[in-house]
Amino acid sequence: MQSLQAKASQWSGVSQDDAFSIDQTNLFQKVGLQTFINLSTNFYTRVFDDEEEWFRSIFANSKKEDAIRNQYEFFVQRMGGPPLYTQRRGHPALIARHRPFPVTHRAAERWLHHMQQALESTPDIDADSKDRMMNFFRHTAFFLVAGDELKSPNQQPPCKHGTSNQLSM
Amino acid sequence: MQSLQAKASQWSGVSQDDAFSIDQTNLFQKVGLQTFINLSTNFYTRVFDDEEEWFRSIFANSKKEDAIRNQYEFFVQRMGGPPLYTQRRGHPALIARHRPFPVTHRAAERWLHHMQQALESTPDIDADSKDRMMNFFRHTAFFLVAGDELKSPNQQPPCKHGTSNQLSM
Repeated sequence: MQSLQAKASQWSGVSQDDAFSIDQTNLFQKVGLQTFINLSTNFYTRVFDDEEEWFRSIFANSKKEDAIRNQYEFFVQRMGGPPLYTQRRGHPALIARHRPFPVTHRAAERWLHHMQQALESTPDIDADSKDRMMNFFRHTAFFLVAGDELKSPNQQPPCKHGTSNQLSM
Repeated sequence: MQSLQAKASQWSGVSQDDAFSIDQTNLFQKVGLQTFINLSTNFYTRVFDDEEEWFRSIFANSKKEDAIRNQYEFFVQRMGGPPLYTQRRGHPALIARHRPFPVTHRAAERWLHHMQQALESTPDIDADSKDRMMNFFRHTAFFLVAGDELKSPNQQPPCKHGTSNQLSM
């Protein structure tokens, strides 16, 4: 089976190296907490107001303020800041926590469209940081699409889980 | 639905704060790369030689050297060192990557038994660091048990996935 990260690179067009170029610098120190809060607020305002009902409905059971906080706490932690997300909620476990949501290719592209707009509306982030962040977001979005397919691999009945060789711990 | 991290705390007996006390210091700087390699080598030697066949068989499709490398690269990264795991394999996605394995309460306890022994056989780690690491391991093991149950929540047929409110991104 092709690995999660290989699928993510193929579908996103973003190499593993580019996706994790966020680790070559400390974006939290550059950007700061308030700007991450602003970015996530801008992003979820777009999402919850999306004219595309199919996408907006994915978030129908989420509270906007919870979604914003979960997102910026994860971003802060992942990009070099304090471990706000883990202190409150434990391991990110990105794929498992997205399990309730239909993370399709189309949904990933819509998510990225809103995030691109949100980044463009956030002047306090320099161009190099925006590039690194978009690469990370794009690769991660398709990593989650790959993870979503674990729910029903190869269109088999969803009870049949394929095994793979992905021991991490 | 009770959250993953609440189940992890309840079943492990380790609070969220104690589990992530590894983030209050830099264990990688204290312990160093070679000691992490030694720890994981010691651990997986015990696992692959386990007299309990039911536990040993969980790893039957894994190569010992891959299991060792995946583990110590994750530990190094998670405990303050360079992001070795992510550079090679992407997001840890702990629950999803453990999906092929039956992470039961009993398997978690056996894993922890071997890790406790491996830590006790590794003199280069000070007692305080060992305590922090065991708390992290214990909480994480039961976080993965909670994640494993997502495969078939409440003993319902495994096709029926409960929804929950765990948006993280």
